[in-house]
Amino acid sequence: MKKTNEVPYKIYLEEHEMPTAWYNLRADMKNKPAPLLNPGTKQPITAGELGVVFCEELVKQELDNDTAYFPIPEEVFNFYKMYRPSPLVRAYCLEKVLDTPAKIYYKFEGNNTSGSHKLNSAIAQAYYAKKQGLKGVTTETGAGQWGTALSMACSYLGLDCKVFMVKVSYEQKPFRREVMRTYGASVTPSPSTTTQVGRKILEAHPGTTGSLGCAISEAVEAAVTSEGYRYVLGSVLNQVLLHQSIIGLETEAALKKYGIKPDVIIGCAGGGSNLGGLIAPFMRDKILGKADYRIVAVEPASCPSFTRGKFAYDFADTGMVCPLAKMYTLGSGFIPAPNHAGGLRYHGMSTILSQLYHDGYMEAISVPQTEVFKAAERFARVEGILPAPESAHAIKAAIDEAEKCRETGEEKTIVFGLTGTGYFDMVAYEKFHDGKMDDYIPTDEDLEAGFKGLPVID
Amino acid sequence: MKKTNEVPYKIYLEEHEMPTAWYNLRADMKNKPAPLLNPGTKQPITAGELGVVFCEELVKQELDNDTAYFPIPEEVFNFYKMYRPSPLVRAYCLEKVLDTPAKIYYKFEGNNTSGSHKLNSAIAQAYYAKKQGLKGVTTETGAGQWGTALSMACSYLGLDCKVFMVKVSYEQKPFRREVMRTYGASVTPSPSTTTQVGRKILEAHPGTTGSLGCAISEAVEAAVTSEGYRYVLGSVLNQVLLHQSIIGLETEAALKKYGIKPDVIIGCAGGGSNLGGLIAPFMRDKILGKADYRIVAVEPASCPSFTRGKFAYDFADTGMVCPLAKMYTLGSGFIPAPNHAGGLRYHGMSTILSQLYHDGYMEAISVPQTEVFKAAERFARVEGILPAPESAHAIKAAIDEAEKCRETGEEKTIVFGLTGTGYFDMVAYEKFHDGKMDDYIPTDEDLEAGFKGLPVID
Repeated sequence: MKKTNEVPYKIYLEEHEMPTAWYNLRADMKNKPAPLLNPGTKQPITAGELGVVFCEELVKQELDNDTAYFPIPEEVFNFYKMYRPSPLVRAYCLEKVLDTPAKIYYKFEGNNTSGSHKLNSAIAQAYYAKKQGLKGVTTETGAGQWGTALSMACSYLGLDCKVFMVKVSYEQKPFRREVMRTYGASVTPSPSTTTQVGRKILEAHPGTTGSLGCAISEAVEAAVTSEGYRYVLGSVLNQVLLHQSIIGLETEAALKKYGIKPDVIIGCAGGGSNLGGLIAPFMRDKILGKADYRIVAVEPASCPSFTRGKFAYDFADTGMVCPLAKMYTLGSGFIPAPNHAGGLRYHGMSTILSQLYHDGYMEAISVPQTEVFKAAERFARVEGILPAPESAHAIKAAIDEAEKCRETGEEKTIVFGLTGTGYFDMVAYEKFHDGKMDDYIPTDEDLEAGFKGLPVID
Repeated sequence: MKKTNEVPYKIYLEEHEMPTAWYNLRADMKNKPAPLLNPGTKQPITAGELGVVFCEELVKQELDNDTAYFPIPEEVFNFYKMYRPSPLVRAYCLEKVLDTPAKIYYKFEGNNTSGSHKLNSAIAQAYYAKKQGLKGVTTETGAGQWGTALSMACSYLGLDCKVFMVKVSYEQKPFRREVMRTYGASVTPSPSTTTQVGRKILEAHPGTTGSLGCAISEAVEAAVTSEGYRYVLGSVLNQVLLHQSIIGLETEAALKKYGIKPDVIIGCAGGGSNLGGLIAPFMRDKILGKADYRIVAVEPASCPSFTRGKFAYDFADTGMVCPLAKMYTLGSGFIPAPNHAGGLRYHGMSTILSQLYHDGYMEAISVPQTEVFKAAERFARVEGILPAPESAHAIKAAIDEAEKCRETGEEKTIVFGLTGTGYFDMVAYEKFHDGKMDDYIPTDEDLEAGFKGLPVID
């Protein structure tokens, strides 16, 4: 049967078809994610406690397990209109080279200067900071994707933006640093002498090139000790998944426009911001029994929180100053290998996704790095887009699914999230081309060492 | 009067609204561009002579001054559908910060991995090479935008792609090199020992870091001496402007969709590929007396072919092996300063645009580099997109126009071409941020030196 109304290469929603509210998956979850705990008292953290670090409205969103829809504020919506809706692309060319009866779609979030989906939450968080009358926000960044997104959002709203960038990245990856400066952010290599915790670390380890854990600590200190500042974070948190639901809602609307029903939905998983956003409305239908989809999380074999982690309370940061979260974790003492998919190098996972995985609503797989880059290159050569290493984890899984369909003859519809572009990841591609990429997989002993950091909380 | 049907932030054509033929502006020009001359005989070059270097179909397109429309081959059209139509963006946010009654639109060509409009012609040229049964194509690249575009097109069509990359860029800008390798191109630093001309240059200048002129010579030699190869070029040529007309045709269709009539059309000008493509249908209406637009070319003050060059026959390359073209030129002996807008560092100009400028159909202005980067940053901070330095020349001129409107109160409609993104130009942005950018403007003596290379042909 030939379709009379053939699906175009790229499905763009019209402006008036764009979702006008974010969807809060927690509202429909049967088992709610376990509450964050105060690291001192081990009691559920209060809005007041969180409000010292985060903006008021964001604290409300963080703690609200009941409200299903949050209207997108007009100013955020207008910003979205500059780079959204993002296209849902039919991968005709990939299907052809794979010679598969499967139909492959990807939601592409890379068509903005930050190069990823991070901007969706950055503008929301900056907006609420502005609305609260704050002067600015602080954050940390590793490779710089989140920092770039936040600096763009802050520059648009006229908000000050202080980014603590892990020193080794600051020095070795100067390009994203310059992008942030273009957007007016102040970028400080971490550890720095501008904070107490930074000075302490520098005293103890004079030659250190920094870590994400240290940068978080500095950013939090800078927020708490400066009048009119709050700290913001780009993944893991419930509020972030809420904002990222725009990805899934647009995907749902685009599919509906052409009467397409997905069979499998695939996303890469680091802290969970992209995956949680992409699957939100599909997971809702699955929980409510309205539809059945396979939902697959893909993580690096070097940092396998879902597939080899424990579902337990753990610190959200390596510095152990942040709240405790119940999640799939490798232990806050786990040190991920220098995997090139920096965005997936996190020991823990969103509490929402952790609960859903625990309850059997999702699958998870892990893939080694070289396989990921092979898939990335294969994809780039036919679909044009050069993917970020993070995104390529989902590509790898989607290609595997499509190849299975070639064997079985099944005409499955596969949807995956292409979170961003790899323009700032060419060092990793170079290693891949030169055969110098390693496929480190942690041993059981490595994992045991990470789990040692787990606090005992029932 | 409030518009009932408000213009969205981004106008996307539907797939079925995309232009299906390229438009050849020469067909409607009253004075045709002067013919290319054989550098040896000084006689108009023949199809046979050009066919040694270029593909047959492309030679036909190069020499055809009469056919107005060339249908876009289906395979090229399908490739276009992967990244086109490109959006025509209403710069609402820029208008707001400029506090101008002007309405500003830009046609954004950067949403593809090559990062610029170059892909529009790369896929066309690769397609005709494939159709002719060739094994592959050769080309040169400086900073790497054209080489990237060509490698993407070749990988899609399964064609071999040999890129000679100026050695200094190969070594200092490894990222674009890796992008090309991702798409399967072989990238050779030039001068190399793989060609006779390369070996000769290396013998004479052992420590040389190469030049575009040298890379062209190597690429041409590699094409001519290899069975089944031809040489391709990313700008200046008539065929390139033909393919790039897709930019202007889409812009025209998008404007018509919302009943918008532009007053001023602005584009940056290096070899003329983007400007010639953007203005094609508008220039047609102007020539035919159907509409009147101001059409403005913007070039760097460091390489001012239109504004300070001569309209004369000159060599198209510094190596003086390519045909002679009648164009606005600074002389093939002119050595442009190391301006960061590498794509605009060309001593000559498209013969089509040169003739039109000579006949009074266009204006041209030149702008200094620091002003260009100021405009780029200002634009990025409100419109989100980080522009390529080349594109930022057009931004600078558009902002100036809009600010004039603020003074006069005129509600002009300004359309400009945003040819690409600056993700691989962060070294230039860094210099700008650090106040280390220079604003070199050639003296009259510098220009005299360049003009010395001009052959005497009437």
